[in-house]
Amino acid sequence: MHKRQRREHGERGSDPARVLALSDGVFAITLTLLVLEIHVPDLAGGQSLVEAMREVAPSFVAFLISFVALAIAWGGHRDLFALIRRTNRPLVWLNFLYLLPLCLLPFGAALVSRHHREPVALTLYGTLLIAITVTRLTIWQYATRRPNLLFSPVDRRSRWLETAVLAVPGIGAALAVAVAGRSPPASLTIYTIAPLIYFVAMAVGRSTAPPESAALFT
Amino acid sequence: MHKRQRREHGERGSDPARVLALSDGVFAITLTLLVLEIHVPDLAGGQSLVEAMREVAPSFVAFLISFVALAIAWGGHRDLFALIRRTNRPLVWLNFLYLLPLCLLPFGAALVSRHHREPVALTLYGTLLIAITVTRLTIWQYATRRPNLLFSPVDRRSRWLETAVLAVPGIGAALAVAVAGRSPPASLTIYTIAPLIYFVAMAVGRSTAPPESAALFT
Amino acid sequence: MHKRQRREHGERGSDPARVLALSDGVFAITLTLLVLEIHVPDLAGGQSLVEAMREVAPSFVAFLISFVALAIAWGGHRDLFALIRRTNRPLVWLNFLYLLPLCLLPFGAALVSRHHREPVALTLYGTLLIAITVTRLTIWQYATRRPNLLFSPVDRRSRWLETAVLAVPGIGAALAVAVAGRSPPASLTIYTIAPLIYFVAMAVGRSTAPPESAALFT
Amino acid sequence: MHKRQRREHGERGSDPARVLALSDGVFAITLTLLVLEIHVPDLAGGQSLVEAMREVAPSFVAFLISFVALAIAWGGHRDLFALIRRTNRPLVWLNFLYLLPLCLLPFGAALVSRHHREPVALTLYGTLLIAITVTRLTIWQYATRRPNLLFSPVDRRSRWLETAVLAVPGIGAALAVAVAGRSPPASLTIYTIAPLIYFVAMAVGRSTAPPESAALFT
Repeated sequence: MHKRQRREHGERGSDPARVLALSDGVFAITLTLLVLEIHVPDLAGGQSLVEAMREVAPSFVAFLISFVALAIAWGGHRDLFALIRRTNRPLVWLNFLYLLPLCLLPFGAALVSRHHREPVALTLYGTLLIAITVTRLTIWQYATRRPNLLFSPVDRRSRWLETAVLAVPGIGAALAVAVAGRSPPASLTIYTIAPLIYFVAMAVGRSTAPPESAALFT
Repeated sequence: MHKRQRREHGERGSDPARVLALSDGVFAITLTLLVLEIHVPDLAGGQSLVEAMREVAPSFVAFLISFVALAIAWGGHRDLFALIRRTNRPLVWLNFLYLLPLCLLPFGAALVSRHHREPVALTLYGTLLIAITVTRLTIWQYATRRPNLLFSPVDRRSRWLETAVLAVPGIGAALAVAVAGRSPPASLTIYTIAPLIYFVAMAVGRSTAPPESAALFT
Repeated sequence: MHKRQRREHGERGSDPARVLALSDGVFAITLTLLVLEIHVPDLAGGQSLVEAMREVAPSFVAFLISFVALAIAWGGHRDLFALIRRTNRPLVWLNFLYLLPLCLLPFGAALVSRHHREPVALTLYGTLLIAITVTRLTIWQYATRRPNLLFSPVDRRSRWLETAVLAVPGIGAALAVAVAGRSPPASLTIYTIAPLIYFVAMAVGRSTAPPESAALFT
Repeated sequence: MHKRQRREHGERGSDPARVLALSDGVFAITLTLLVLEIHVPDLAGGQSLVEAMREVAPSFVAFLISFVALAIAWGGHRDLFALIRRTNRPLVWLNFLYLLPLCLLPFGAALVSRHHREPVALTLYGTLLIAITVTRLTIWQYATRRPNLLFSPVDRRSRWLETAVLAVPGIGAALAVAVAGRSPPASLTIYTIAPLIYFVAMAVGRSTAPPESAALFT
């Protein structure tokens, strides 16, 4: 194999295109599989559909929380890979480690929608959200320390500012897990409010970031 | 980060490619998930398969209506993004707001196929269709007022003509919701006929549109 | 809107890329949804798993037949769109008409796997396969008569030769439907053998086609 | 049809893009369908959710093993197609033959998660993994012997070195099948450990490969 050919093959082999195709596929499917956990109610003896739908309400809440969590995760994944020019083997495997809790999220949502007063269900759900945050941060730290994988280097300050912003959903989930044992409703409330805090953190991050490091907050 | 690099990153970060990949994925999956709501009938004591299939008929109607609704929505999404050169954060989130009722449509179809004589089911189904129309119009109005996101500016007249055409499926759904309480069969009929009216409106819109604004009706 | 801009928009608006993305998504999902119709058997009182798996055998047959039918359909779709440079609105809607029976195939497969001795199930399954063939031929005839949609014109002889080859799976399905009432096992056998005949027809078609029209049989 | 046009059509017709789109779709869907086999437990009389979750544990093990098997398969598919410039008809059909056991893997995982002490379930699961390996090796041997399909030729040594490395997951599965009859737990253990051995084999393969043939182990 000639040198030039080998370099070209290396470039094709490290093209992120298929990593993105696979990841977008997984995001699209988990987003739509969530709906399968909302079961159409049967009408048992004299019950009206309105009453029956009220029993399905927790499924809707679990659907919405998970939909927003996946949307935030997808936005973060897109921001990240807008910086990445090449992938190497560890990055591909870190990405699979990130897709693992994502793929489990429909199960977590089903668990919460059926047992939303059970601390174990709320804890397991939070663990999935924390795993998504932790693996996302790992990819971020791994990639931004290897300028050869990037379109342009990311300076130290931007790296840690972004790390702080990305950690917010994970911290929200950790709080929800912490109170799950004492008060399941409080835990569920935190899961619902956490995305709002994230949006505020993003807005603040964008406005306080120095212009040189503002790339991620466009 | 140098100016030129930042600009390049900004362009990669605002490339609509992944928004389209995710959206096409969601469309493809909802189109195919609809079929899971058509259950294969069991044959209870002496019943023939023909009789049993007749009981499944409402599922087929719900499948067909939803398939056509999704096809119209996809065509509209494709027309819209043929105009869009760049995405920004609000546009990405508006797109998620649009995907939300789309992802819920298989549930709505299941609800109608099981309880097609229940006003609540027909109302909820129509609400999803209205939400798809409203979010679609919001993206359209948002994007066409920001020439920097577009390949070429859209003039005021085209903007409102298209708004009127896009509103048709939503108005059809609103009518179906309005009569759902009094006559569920009339409501179901409207859901079936509305797409036909939309096709006629599109044809009329295309033939009356001035040549300068005809881009959307090619 | 300037003339050049309008022409460019027209080209973006007629780019087949998203039609292919949506279609490939639908193919990938129907291929994988088929597996959901193979149910893991429960072991009722003393039954061994081997015995229980034997009862699942018809599901495997339905899975395999449908998998091959979808693979043939996908190959044909890819061959077709390798010729198509631009799409217009009728072509997009013809493609949806083609995706409709495709999306219903997992239901057809489930029907056959549960009621493989019922003529109604075998007839409905064949109707889906015939609909896939008929819509595929319609797209083929529509597109090849419009050179402005194609990379290069298709001559009359190639058009009808390809039509004959493409009709084979539909004719096989029509035969299977015709005998379904008299002998369900014969019908099932035809569904299984038809793909083999198709492969032979393709091979013959390729070897007898004149070099000028050989493009489709590479 | 002119010569140049025919050559251009031939190139479009042999472009691997849609083969990759379809394959990535199938990978993404099987990865996410696996989660549907983890059923949310009902709480029967006085049982705690923790106890109920313990009963779901085998489903998690089957999910994890299958997730890793699919991730390894996807990585291998990506490495393979980074070498392939053109596809021909046999290659497309070999790829379908490869996707067939992949599509059945969620069924295999469901079978193992429900009957993890049954030799038949463990044997069938292993057969799927062996089929994935065998079809993968067939594609590899087929493609690397046809330089006209490749970006650059693969020498004999690289071909067989890669064959040896690729065979590892299949050999692991064959071992697990061999002991399934005598000791189901031992079989399950092998399924869990095999990926680790594969990672080690890859690492060794990369470090011992001569620089000229190192393309696949970047």
